Amino acid sequence: MLPVCVIGLGLIGGSVLRAARAAGRDVWGYTESGQDAAVARADGFLVESDVDAALTLAAQRDALVVIAVPLPSLASVLRRIVVMAPNCPVTDVISVKGPVLDAVERLAPSLTFAGGHPMAGRSESGWAAGSAELFHGAAWVVTADEKTDLAAWRIAAELALDCGAHVVPTTAYEHDDAVARISHLPHVLAAVLAAVGADVGPLPLALAAGSFRDGTRVAGSRPELVRAMCEGNAPALLPALDDALGRLGAARGALASTGSLKATLDAGHRGRLALIGQQQSEWLAVTVDLTAPDVHDALQSVGAQGGRVVRLAENTALAEIPRSRVDNDL
Amino acid sequence: MLPVCVIGLGLIGGSVLRAARAAGRDVWGYTESGQDAAVARADGFLVESDVDAALTLAAQRDALVVIAVPLPSLASVLRRIVVMAPNCPVTDVISVKGPVLDAVERLAPSLTFAGGHPMAGRSESGWAAGSAELFHGAAWVVTADEKTDLAAWRIAAELALDCGAHVVPTTAYEHDDAVARISHLPHVLAAVLAAVGADVGPLPLALAAGSFRDGTRVAGSRPELVRAMCEGNAPALLPALDDALGRLGAARGALASTGSLKATLDAGHRGRLALIGQQQSEWLAVTVDLTAPDVHDALQSVGAQGGRVVRLAENTALAEIPRSRVDNDL
Repeated sequence: MLPVCVIGLGLIGGSVLRAARAAGRDVWGYTESGQDAAVARADGFLVESDVDAALTLAAQRDALVVIAVPLPSLASVLRRIVVMAPNCPVTDVISVKGPVLDAVERLAPSLTFAGGHPMAGRSESGWAAGSAELFHGAAWVVTADEKTDLAAWRIAAELALDCGAHVVPTTAYEHDDAVARISHLPHVLAAVLAAVGADVGPLPLALAAGSFRDGTRVAGSRPELVRAMCEGNAPALLPALDDALGRLGAARGALASTGSLKATLDAGHRGRLALIGQQQSEWLAVTVDLTAPDVHDALQSVGAQGGRVVRLAENTALAEIPRSRVDNDL
Repeated sequence: MLPVCVIGLGLIGGSVLRAARAAGRDVWGYTESGQDAAVARADGFLVESDVDAALTLAAQRDALVVIAVPLPSLASVLRRIVVMAPNCPVTDVISVKGPVLDAVERLAPSLTFAGGHPMAGRSESGWAAGSAELFHGAAWVVTADEKTDLAAWRIAAELALDCGAHVVPTTAYEHDDAVARISHLPHVLAAVLAAVGADVGPLPLALAAGSFRDGTRVAGSRPELVRAMCEGNAPALLPALDDALGRLGAARGALASTGSLKATLDAGHRGRLALIGQQQSEWLAVTVDLTAPDVHDALQSVGAQGGRVVRLAENTALAEIPRSRVDNDL
């Protein structure tokens, strides 16, 4: 098991550090927050006080470097890795993948790199909010684009599995489109709903019950964190917003002209059933040959089918594909 | 305490029957569902096997008649009340108020009527899903339009208080606008979100976490029930949809042109804080003189401020107005 050097010890980076140690790995990290560093050291972790020291140790020990800083800090971290630990395998846990891949190709094309994104979070942030269990049972995307180095993919996937997650292999583009639809669009719609409910005086809020509470919950998150997440994925979020605008406009038009919301509500109900069906589906085991020439396609296919890699052997990945029951129910 | 005759024994009507009996009232009902009637009788309730028999008993005993049928059945029930129990006070528990008021004015203008809408529900429906506790702590709108008979308003409000709810007085128009924003729009947005997430293949759903699950939860409700609720309030839902479309379009435009979602997300965050703030606010006690010439205005003002009536005395209503703390927090 490779040692792990985590650059950035917020909620996600701090949880990776804890989970990797719990899995038996040697770990250390770096954070620019003196306060987080002090607390992490008090929790028994080695936290270097400058990034070059952490990366020097990574180079000496052939560690996996995990970039866990916000997107705006990515470029400066990549530049330090190229100088201090150019031969270490590298992954990241940033919530968009296309812009990360672009930055790596531009600033550090020689790195052995595969991008990652664990689909887990909390409303709190910072080292104190993290835990070794944060990723248990969660999906953890590890991108497998055509150019992805398979050794880097495997190293990043092993970290995800060690952290208790399952690995969803897909491309950076497909990842960004998917999270725009199921993570970023929900935040925008929740904000719109909260404003429509609140901006005409107190009466609507006084009558609000479960549907409004659920529909606006994520509007309670800190707007600056939501902005960073959504705005960083603007190229994928714009088409998702257009999709939503088109469907909402069609609902409005149908209600005005025919009095019916049948098409809108039936499609939404099917979508919700598909979500439930996928989460409750049986899983078909499939084996991916990691030595095959079309391995990138095979991995991408697992993700495209809603599947996941649950174990890695020497030359194979054991994956599971959902056999959704929802098609039979509708 | 007036006896209570409930016409329609689904989730809401059946819960009113139970709650009114639990409050010590004589109660009986009617349902066209032979199965629900049999179960209700087995539960110890008097359930007449035709609507005229139930209304005859109401006329004999000067009971309050509660209309708890779906909107499409309202007209036929009103016609029977006019014939069989024309002097009984009447209220309803249908989820729109403007169309109900129109039907009463058209078909039964001589009735002593005030409309009602308890803001409580469950995803299950029918007699079996009801309970005497369904309305505990819930808001129960009783409309107080300029033409509303104050005696009818008081009788309907006393039923709501007996059922454990608090009474929100407002106009039919303001009620319908409010529920369009906080109950019907959430269903349409949940449907749109579920479809955007589900209609491009399994990957997005495989990555979906809390924000998508919360944002699509009500899309799991039975579409025909959601349709009846939303389509019956089309005149108020259309402007709410336009408000949402305008805000979503503005978000899209800002993201495309400036890369920023700040205005959208800040407004949504303020709305969510206003919801939390209103629900956690301190309450200022105010007394409404039910004999004053401007009593309708005074009652409407309670609702417009997000307030509620919590007790009725001989000539006064004790109300509470929220003193929101959220203004100080922002």
